Amino acid sequence: MIFKTPTHYFLVSGASEGLTPLNAFDGALLRAGIGDTNLVKMSSIVPPRCQLISPVPLPPGSLVPTAYASITSDIPGELISSAVAVALPREPHHPGLIMEYSARGSKAEIEETVRQMAMEGMKLRQREIKELKSIAVEHKVQKVGATLAAVVLWDAVPG
Amino acid sequence: MIFKTPTHYFLVSGASEGLTPLNAFDGALLRAGIGDTNLVKMSSIVPPRCQLISPVPLPPGSLVPTAYASITSDIPGELISSAVAVALPREPHHPGLIMEYSARGSKAEIEETVRQMAMEGMKLRQREIKELKSIAVEHKVQKVGATLAAVVLWDAVPG
Amino acid sequence: MIFKTPTHYFLVSGASEGLTPLNAFDGALLRAGIGDTNLVKMSSIVPPRCQLISPVPLPPGSLVPTAYASITSDIPGELISSAVAVALPREPHHPGLIMEYSARGSKAEIEETVRQMAMEGMKLRQREIKELKSIAVEHKVQKVGATLAAVVLWDAVPG
Repeated sequence: MIFKTPTHYFLVSGASEGLTPLNAFDGALLRAGIGDTNLVKMSSIVPPRCQLISPVPLPPGSLVPTAYASITSDIPGELISSAVAVALPREPHHPGLIMEYSARGSKAEIEETVRQMAMEGMKLRQREIKELKSIAVEHKVQKVGATLAAVVLWDAVPG
Repeated sequence: MIFKTPTHYFLVSGASEGLTPLNAFDGALLRAGIGDTNLVKMSSIVPPRCQLISPVPLPPGSLVPTAYASITSDIPGELISSAVAVALPREPHHPGLIMEYSARGSKAEIEETVRQMAMEGMKLRQREIKELKSIAVEHKVQKVGATLAAVVLWDAVPG
Repeated sequence: MIFKTPTHYFLVSGASEGLTPLNAFDGALLRAGIGDTNLVKMSSIVPPRCQLISPVPLPPGSLVPTAYASITSDIPGELISSAVAVALPREPHHPGLIMEYSARGSKAEIEETVRQMAMEGMKLRQREIKELKSIAVEHKVQKVGATLAAVVLWDAVPG
């Protein structure tokens, strides 16, 4: 393998205003607790037997494989949301599926959509779902806002 | 080096309908045989002496460096296509070049375009082409459709 | 850790015309000296004590974690620019921050914006800036043009 396969994962989310869309995204990452790492975006599987852990501080500047949804907006008053869902299979030797979704709308709507997306993906794989986790965040834009929801993959529980 | 350099590669493609654009993309990945891995998108070189192999099953949830083209559409009746081309140099110590292209249009058109793009990139590098491989797929959208063509890099022939 | 943490970095930029937007981007990468590598895009931190070096040739086909800004345009006469800024903290055990920005406009404008973005991001982290580096490039489009500015992370000084 080119890269090690992750063994642990956790879910985070955050929202922020910022000077520019990228600054708002940066602020959302900081609120989510992953603002001082190098996210490497990937699509979107939980390896078999990968363990859910509570969010942990990651080494600053480390490269972190992450599945995430993010949206920015510069329309004052607009409500934006991001969500991720993780569908875990009944069979422990099967992988789980991550889905990401961002859009205008409330946290509740966007989270419901992403959960349906994950259920649909497991149906397509003909895998029964043991557990469906999700996290979502919404933000009402003042000037320039961003939301982010992420599944962070990692290979150890630090400490 | 931060990452290992790949030693093998293969070409795949797929198309699918889905509940949402991301579900359609997920379905296209499954059809292509890489739906249970974590694609890490990269731009777009075949390392020197990297060997073409037939598509192989990859470990579920593994992180896989991949150059790919993908497109989604929700316009019923629209024809969408994705293609990738790999131009290999005459000199074996030189790297090869990957190009990706997706658009509305037929498989034949999109594949022809991506092949021209790869030839152009080798011309810019003043490298003679020994071989030009490509793969393409087209899909007529019913409700929400996606196409995907990919060059998957790997570092071993499993098994 | 899934990936090694980079220990060195360098800044590059380039611009080019091309047959297609992707060919123009490829040309810009070649001008920047990183056209024969596999860029893995990441967001956007300089690890603590990571050392700035002069651009070095990277092994062809190697996977290279890179933070970059890029833009393409097919509007003849349009002026496009890309810039990256690196803000380094006074405290050496803190990470630095990379910001990327591309837009229509002159190199001077875009570089000024990206520097402000990096300062803003450090202010949000309440970290004093020891040094602020940036690089930018502009290009007047003839038919299809691209600009690119990048911070390349690496783990050794080759040679």
